[in-house]
Amino acid sequence: MVFKKITLIGTSDESFDAAADEALDRAENTLDNIYWAEVEEFGVEMDAADSREYQAELEVAFELE
Amino acid sequence: MVFKKITLIGTSDESFDAAADEALDRAENTLDNIYWAEVEEFGVEMDAADSREYQAELEVAFELE
Amino acid sequence: MVFKKITLIGTSDESFDAAADEALDRAENTLDNIYWAEVEEFGVEMDAADSREYQAELEVAFELE
Amino acid sequence: MVFKKITLIGTSDESFDAAADEALDRAENTLDNIYWAEVEEFGVEMDAADSREYQAELEVAFELE
Amino acid sequence: MVFKKITLIGTSDESFDAAADEALDRAENTLDNIYWAEVEEFGVEMDAADSREYQAELEVAFELE
Amino acid sequence: MVFKKITLIGTSDESFDAAADEALDRAENTLDNIYWAEVEEFGVEMDAADSREYQAELEVAFELE
Amino acid sequence: MVFKKITLIGTSDESFDAAADEALDRAENTLDNIYWAEVEEFGVEMDAADSREYQAELEVAFELE
Amino acid sequence: MVFKKITLIGTSDESFDAAADEALDRAENTLDNIYWAEVEEFGVEMDAADSREYQAELEVAFELE
Amino acid sequence: MVFKKITLIGTSDESFDAAADEALDRAENTLDNIYWAEVEEFGVEMDAADSREYQAELEVAFELE
Amino acid sequence: MVFKKITLIGTSDESFDAAADEALDRAENTLDNIYWAEVEEFGVEMDAADSREYQAELEVAFELE
Amino acid sequence: MVFKKITLIGTSDESFDAAADEALDRAENTLDNIYWAEVEEFGVEMDAADSREYQAELEVAFELE
Amino acid sequence: MVFKKITLIGTSDESFDAAADEALDRAENTLDNIYWAEVEEFGVEMDAADSREYQAELEVAFELE
Repeated sequence: MVFKKITLIGTSDESFDAAADEALDRAENTLDNIYWAEVEEFGVEMDAADSREYQAELEVAFELE
Repeated sequence: MVFKKITLIGTSDESFDAAADEALDRAENTLDNIYWAEVEEFGVEMDAADSREYQAELEVAFELE
Repeated sequence: MVFKKITLIGTSDESFDAAADEALDRAENTLDNIYWAEVEEFGVEMDAADSREYQAELEVAFELE
Repeated sequence: MVFKKITLIGTSDESFDAAADEALDRAENTLDNIYWAEVEEFGVEMDAADSREYQAELEVAFELE
Repeated sequence: MVFKKITLIGTSDESFDAAADEALDRAENTLDNIYWAEVEEFGVEMDAADSREYQAELEVAFELE
Repeated sequence: MVFKKITLIGTSDESFDAAADEALDRAENTLDNIYWAEVEEFGVEMDAADSREYQAELEVAFELE
Repeated sequence: MVFKKITLIGTSDESFDAAADEALDRAENTLDNIYWAEVEEFGVEMDAADSREYQAELEVAFELE
Repeated sequence: MVFKKITLIGTSDESFDAAADEALDRAENTLDNIYWAEVEEFGVEMDAADSREYQAELEVAFELE
Repeated sequence: MVFKKITLIGTSDESFDAAADEALDRAENTLDNIYWAEVEEFGVEMDAADSREYQAELEVAFELE
Repeated sequence: MVFKKITLIGTSDESFDAAADEALDRAENTLDNIYWAEVEEFGVEMDAADSREYQAELEVAFELE
Repeated sequence: MVFKKITLIGTSDESFDAAADEALDRAENTLDNIYWAEVEEFGVEMDAADSREYQAELEVAFELE
Repeated sequence: MVFKKITLIGTSDESFDAAADEALDRAENTLDNIYWAEVEEFGVEMDAADSREYQAELEVAFELE
């Protein structure tokens, strides 16, 4: 059994949790056999007025077939 | 005054905040004089279909009597 | 274009997200041209009974004029 | 000359060396021009009774053509 | 479900694998419900002539009941 | 031979050395067979006027019998 | 919006800047929607006489469609 | 003698060296008694087509009078 | 409640403790509501003959009003 | 008593343990009074076909006379 | 085959690249069989007016005969 | 101008400051042109009863002629 890890960054204008979930949703759409994910970093993009884009960088591990 | 730190990992199927709170709840049930906690890592276990178990690893510091 | 980064720690009795937002609110009250922020650390102060003060330490980057 | 690095996690019920080799075997089956690998982490999964699954996380670097 | 992590250092005059296994053996003798372990550091004590004591420091995670 | 490491934080209103010694004193009162300790962090609590509480966080390693 | 990060290592016999640019050139040839890159490490390969191959390892982030 | 450190991020469309110099130029315009600077990170912003904005994050130390 | 952290480096020809105290003295002269400080690094400048300048870099946290 | 640490990288076509031992063998051939060693990194060179050169980087500490 | 690593810091009033090259030049003057080097840190000394001394700290690896 | 860094560990039964000074004393006995030193780690050896050997690991930088 061999796993591979990829790094995804989800975004949300709501919360860090929602940003992490968006990355996991994307991973599940394209990958089978996801086992776990690790949060690498949380950040916020704020370059437009009155906006906060929450970002969650995750390493997602899935089993190679 | 001497403090001791232990490492707990709370879990939740809701959010990282709830996972952290579960670790703190457990700590408060068995320890007096807790002063602070530090988040060491957030992760997600996903090995069963359609499930996300959010995990929060915390170092919890309490005063030794 | 030169950016400067400062370190703020927001607090909340609700959640890590709210603690981060409080730090960002404060930054926006006194600084123009904020571009992004990076979460450095999450922690919890618990030294009073039945209280949890969630803390979020952020580095906030803004453009110098 | 440009290299790309990917992250693989090999597993073994024998040893850390065997876990690392399994990740390298897998890499060699699907990639040409592998140049080097770096061990990122060793771990052990033990959730079933009397079992130890050794894990080796490696970054594997190969030349892009 | 809440996990706790403790830090053990196993020793062996044979190899790093044997040193890690000794730490895991000890953990299994006194703890139920061990789920995983992470290698924190490998070292060698050599202060007596002609001897090498391999050491493996592991964080061992088990479920609190 | 297996060692265990625990994390203690000593405090002193004198110096970092005295804070470290207080943590070691406490460890020696309750543990036999301590072999070594590693300083993890030095800090200062200053929240009351005219007071400085020096803190030393140490990992203390002792042999399990 | 979800980003993915990949790790590339560019090489040059001129300078670290040129090595980084080569990695970015390669990324732009095969990926659309690149947003940013982070330098992870600079190194030099010198195993042949009178040669210095400058290397720049970068994490390159691009938007997934 | 007490020093203070601040964090600046210089930018350039030329090179990492030029980005670092821009941060140092800015520091020298507003601060006396700068003693040294440490590079914390190099990055590249690429979100507009055909543009690379090199960034250098530096901690700049100056003597407080 | 929002805190801000600044980085100061105190110096002394006596000891690391004295260097840390000098940074804290300076902080208290210009800031109210200091809560805590964290030692980031200890160093020694020795470039003049027969002299050792001990240095202590601290992050000092104070409450913003 | 003063110790000095040097950094050696042993190699082996067998295993990480053998690579570490080769570095220690070399150290013992030229240094007296070695006390301990710390593994800094494990890697694998694979640039020739069908070959794996395991590498172990160690810091070796010995007493200065 | 055993390698040794030493740490050199090159300086230049031109650029980080030139500072790194100066360290490599020095290493090649006194060592045979250099294989690779890793940049550990870039810094700038600025304590004299109108001067910037760029510094590059490198670990240089060479084969022991 | 090129500097070299070596790693020394001083010991003392008095304090961390004295341990650091012993490493610096030793360095000055054998090296000219020492410029600065950085504390890498503080530790305590305690394996004999009633004894505490404070240890200070320093990187010492000196100019190569």
